[in-house]
Amino acid sequence: MNESTTEAAPAWDAAMEAELLRRIDGKTKPVGALGGLEILAAAVARTQRSLTPRLETCCLTIFAADHGIATEGVSAYPQAVTRQMVLNFLGGGAAANVLARSLGVALRVVDAGVAGEPVVHPALVSSRIAAGTRSCLDGPAMTSTELDAALGVGRALGADGDWHARCFGEMGIGNTSSAALVAHKLTGLSLDPLVGRGTGLADPGLARKREILGRAAARTVPCLGPHDAMAEYGGFEIAMMTGAMLGAAAAGRVVIVDGFIASVAALAAVGIEPAARGAMVFAHRSAERGHGAVLASLAAEPILDLGLRLGEGTGALLAWPIIKAAAAMLTEMSSFESAGVSGPA
Amino acid sequence: MNESTTEAAPAWDAAMEAELLRRIDGKTKPVGALGGLEILAAAVARTQRSLTPRLETCCLTIFAADHGIATEGVSAYPQAVTRQMVLNFLGGGAAANVLARSLGVALRVVDAGVAGEPVVHPALVSSRIAAGTRSCLDGPAMTSTELDAALGVGRALGADGDWHARCFGEMGIGNTSSAALVAHKLTGLSLDPLVGRGTGLADPGLARKREILGRAAARTVPCLGPHDAMAEYGGFEIAMMTGAMLGAAAAGRVVIVDGFIASVAALAAVGIEPAARGAMVFAHRSAERGHGAVLASLAAEPILDLGLRLGEGTGALLAWPIIKAAAAMLTEMSSFESAGVSGPA
Repeated sequence: MNESTTEAAPAWDAAMEAELLRRIDGKTKPVGALGGLEILAAAVARTQRSLTPRLETCCLTIFAADHGIATEGVSAYPQAVTRQMVLNFLGGGAAANVLARSLGVALRVVDAGVAGEPVVHPALVSSRIAAGTRSCLDGPAMTSTELDAALGVGRALGADGDWHARCFGEMGIGNTSSAALVAHKLTGLSLDPLVGRGTGLADPGLARKREILGRAAARTVPCLGPHDAMAEYGGFEIAMMTGAMLGAAAAGRVVIVDGFIASVAALAAVGIEPAARGAMVFAHRSAERGHGAVLASLAAEPILDLGLRLGEGTGALLAWPIIKAAAAMLTEMSSFESAGVSGPA
Repeated sequence: MNESTTEAAPAWDAAMEAELLRRIDGKTKPVGALGGLEILAAAVARTQRSLTPRLETCCLTIFAADHGIATEGVSAYPQAVTRQMVLNFLGGGAAANVLARSLGVALRVVDAGVAGEPVVHPALVSSRIAAGTRSCLDGPAMTSTELDAALGVGRALGADGDWHARCFGEMGIGNTSSAALVAHKLTGLSLDPLVGRGTGLADPGLARKREILGRAAARTVPCLGPHDAMAEYGGFEIAMMTGAMLGAAAAGRVVIVDGFIASVAALAAVGIEPAARGAMVFAHRSAERGHGAVLASLAAEPILDLGLRLGEGTGALLAWPIIKAAAAMLTEMSSFESAGVSGPA
């Protein structure tokens, strides 16, 4: 993928780990003075298996799909907004577009299963599994064949290209409902604290969302494995994001995990392949209610806490330059020795 | 300075403020879903007096100087490190250099008063007030003439150039001691909670630092105005940073305030000219103990909380892309109307 990775040792062993910490502590700064940046630099080094990591390019892939459960009135916005936002992404005017341009990140949009006719646009990656999931209130959201297809397409898209880092975002009216149910079944945590306001439900709407999701959850046994949880309650964009994280991690990419929905996809990915956790850095703590519990179950300490709750990968984009700078610190910064700077008296 | 600023309305009135909030709420996202990014965008708009702010270029200026109090053993590092780090900045290998390159920020280094002979280097801005301050344990750190010179040079450097945003950083062994004393005299807060480990003092060193600073503080009346506090206890780099913040704010630049020492400089700047507060955004919450109290006294909510405690403007650099992205959001992002996206059902 890049020089550093190509030259890297075949395995990351105790000696490499010790040398990594020695190098970070030997940089011209008091020990630990770059705080979270040092932790990020170490995570990138381990993912690339390199003491001189190279982290210069990044791509955000946004997966869009619709949810059968959206027709039950669990969202403040109508289902048509998923498609309208796909067109907004393709037109370059959404938050994710603006932030990606500002931060130097490439952007791809994938139709993973938007309701209605296929969206046709030369810049769109069309990987539709179906025209939206079925409502998980009545039965499984998708078949196991559909799930396997979504995971497979995701894996291929996640491993594709030669970007050093990958962000994954989503758009799908109703997908905080889907994510809350998947998280509930994967973690065994109570459902209610995982259910939030999504795009901005007021109290009565939130109560209705809780009631509907409670009924949907009652359809199945309390705990499910990642495949069953995703087939029963997931969305095509969430499943595809899970596959993409697995594909990117297997390809040695740094996976920048966005907010609530992306973190639930990460939880499913780690359930399928625990080793994928090592490639993940967590961008931010979302204002969506269930995110804290999902982060805790992943033992994740996010980089930012900006009260974001938009999705689209916007939090991952904002964390990107910080992760990039952390890797540059490890690779480029001088040591006390090389710069002739005195240590503590 | 730039097109947007040139075209901007001459004053920021209630109608502009209402239009600003209307535009942010009309962007294609749920109201408030970009959290802190929306607050930052509004701050930049007000500073530039423009509803389409332009924030693309940024410069970090690092002020270096020595402190007489350093010879009392208040730091874990010897005074020689100030000069060695200036050479490290000029060689391009310090944390600030690496981060500035990674994040696309210009970097200037100013000798505001390093101990010993002048540092000579073609890239160095030499604006030495003296070869370090006198020890504030025995008397004023600087004369009022020296203070005025430092503030004046700072104002000129802060207003210089056409960068849209300015970061200010510092290097000076002993300067957390100086900053703690200045903050104590400016705010009237107890001294002890303002005194931290700086570059990494262990408990006995911290106790000694507290004892010495207590004696230095006892020399003067409990509360001092900004000029007196700075002359009695400040450093040339801190005073020059105060002037630079005033100069940059007066020139309509966004001032990105770094950590503990920069925030104390900001506190002095706001004490001298309260209107300068409007141009300031606060980059991060430092791990240095006194920073929280200084931020609170400035009613500042920092962007990042990464456990940094290095100075050099490193926190300001890491916040820059986020502030830049926030301004781009306001200027470039489509509205529900322009993108044909439906609002809440």
